[in-house]
Amino acid sequence: MIKHLLLAAATLSLATAANGQENTSSPAPQPALSPNAIVDAAAPGEWITIPAEDLLVMTLAPDRDGNSRSVIIQLMPAPFSTGWVQNIRTFARAKWYDSISVNRVQDNYVVQWGDPNYDNPEAEGEAKALPDGLKVMEESQYKLRQPFAMSEAAFSAATKQAGTNAVAEFLGPLFRPDPYGGGSTIIAGWPIGVDADEMWPVHCYGMIGVGRGYSPDTGSGAELYTVIGHAPRHLDRNIALVGRIVEGMEHLSSLPRGSGALGFYTADEFDKRTPIQSVRVASDLPAADQPAFEYLATEGETFARYADARANRRDPFFIVPAGGADICNIPVPVRRTPNG
Amino acid sequence: MIKHLLLAAATLSLATAANGQENTSSPAPQPALSPNAIVDAAAPGEWITIPAEDLLVMTLAPDRDGNSRSVIIQLMPAPFSTGWVQNIRTFARAKWYDSISVNRVQDNYVVQWGDPNYDNPEAEGEAKALPDGLKVMEESQYKLRQPFAMSEAAFSAATKQAGTNAVAEFLGPLFRPDPYGGGSTIIAGWPIGVDADEMWPVHCYGMIGVGRGYSPDTGSGAELYTVIGHAPRHLDRNIALVGRIVEGMEHLSSLPRGSGALGFYTADEFDKRTPIQSVRVASDLPAADQPAFEYLATEGETFARYADARANRRDPFFIVPAGGADICNIPVPVRRTPNG
Repeated sequence: MIKHLLLAAATLSLATAANGQENTSSPAPQPALSPNAIVDAAAPGEWITIPAEDLLVMTLAPDRDGNSRSVIIQLMPAPFSTGWVQNIRTFARAKWYDSISVNRVQDNYVVQWGDPNYDNPEAEGEAKALPDGLKVMEESQYKLRQPFAMSEAAFSAATKQAGTNAVAEFLGPLFRPDPYGGGSTIIAGWPIGVDADEMWPVHCYGMIGVGRGYSPDTGSGAELYTVIGHAPRHLDRNIALVGRIVEGMEHLSSLPRGSGALGFYTADEFDKRTPIQSVRVASDLPAADQPAFEYLATEGETFARYADARANRRDPFFIVPAGGADICNIPVPVRRTPNG
Repeated sequence: MIKHLLLAAATLSLATAANGQENTSSPAPQPALSPNAIVDAAAPGEWITIPAEDLLVMTLAPDRDGNSRSVIIQLMPAPFSTGWVQNIRTFARAKWYDSISVNRVQDNYVVQWGDPNYDNPEAEGEAKALPDGLKVMEESQYKLRQPFAMSEAAFSAATKQAGTNAVAEFLGPLFRPDPYGGGSTIIAGWPIGVDADEMWPVHCYGMIGVGRGYSPDTGSGAELYTVIGHAPRHLDRNIALVGRIVEGMEHLSSLPRGSGALGFYTADEFDKRTPIQSVRVASDLPAADQPAFEYLATEGETFARYADARANRRDPFFIVPAGGADICNIPVPVRRTPNG
């Protein structure tokens, strides 16, 4: 567990990294690259700038040692979750999120933040009023019709040939069947679940969703959560996903777990609630204060090699390549724009 | 996200919980049970006592507020990882683990503890001597031949009928194909990967593995880690898994992340290392101090209904049942023995 990434990251051979079999059938002149090293070698042109309008800067209160804590969120672009994402910008621009807090930390599940007095078993007072101009979204908007809608039979036939051109044509080369209602792929930088006629975003680690009560309530965006454990994909198609954390995840994932039901902090541990000082849309900040991020194009050659390496580790530490990887074990590389 | 488990846990109807379709084809008289409620309703006889010889009590230094921190580990019984598990008992009985520390915390990956001066990029001094009597294990022992070894063709045919009797006969009713080298199932309380002729334990959240350097080194058990994020199943068949954390996981998963390579704490943050005061085999403790734990029989009727409910949530919060679940999203219920 200790040395392999260190060495692999320092290795610069591209030998056979793009080929799933070559490395096992003939000795490579140098060790194969790790997935991270493949990403590090991507051409600058393979990185896509994330619009500042799609970035949120969430500033938590400093930790008990006085260290500042900033979390950068990437909002999901159209066609997914558009209405909820618009609501989140509305909340941020109304400064509604300022002075809310992290109220729930459930191990291997979620961290949730919002108004501590909204729909909270530990509420002490009145919930704050919501801003004007919020959109009311419907369950049907958790999912999208596929541009390539096909019959159950055609989908079933296609998924039996995952990785073949027949499937790639419909679902992209990254499609693989999985236990969750059909299969999954990565489209335009996001993990997407797919079945015969619909698509939906997937609950991977670090993804952000919209808390809600019972259906048909779909949530406004006032209550948000992020995944801090194994992908709870039973939530897919049941809750709106609106984005992901691209920096500062550790400020949320390492928070003390709540001892109440569902990981809410109980009345005698309110001091564990983490205050949220502000949430700003990056494009509203002075130019000098705007963070700049980019993600690796998921339709590019480097991402294909990265995904292959995630599924078939050949760097020196590994003995047996897995032969595959689930969608949440192929995280899309996102980084601060160099010199950005 | 807020209310559903509260209500489901309070719901006592068994209606249709054992049936994957009924709930969607006709209205149920009462809400279906949540997976947790199904487990809570299990007969006492469906719980299997974990031998005290298979439990470790790992005592961390108190947190900065003076709260004690105890982590309970269940060692994996035969036939898996036997040699490494024997080594771990040898380390514990030699008190070798006393005064080591947690040296690495990598977000969405692992927490690792051991001798801070063993094979550590931040080592300051000499590694401590290992105890006598350790077994030297080999890579081949990461895996087991299947009792039901079959041809690649037979396995391939069988996995195409997951859930059918044909597969259940070989692989158990819980078998499902997955992207990781064949498929997975749950056997005798543990998540197990399966291919045409071998079986191996799976890296789910909370599982514990044996740190090692490069092959053919397979590690002694001096360096251990646990998974604190999405299942890193590319490690399956590459590292020995030896058990899982059954209580106190939050004391490890919420530790501050290390800022060094691989999440190791750097020299300027050694104060973040968590001292491990002692690790004891429960059966070596005075009877009054021995923790008593039990797990839900995974071959029983209740577990089958629990697994079905994990894959097809029908409790009131949910709108769309997933139609399946990956092996790490069906955690085996483990609890303190009531009145134990």
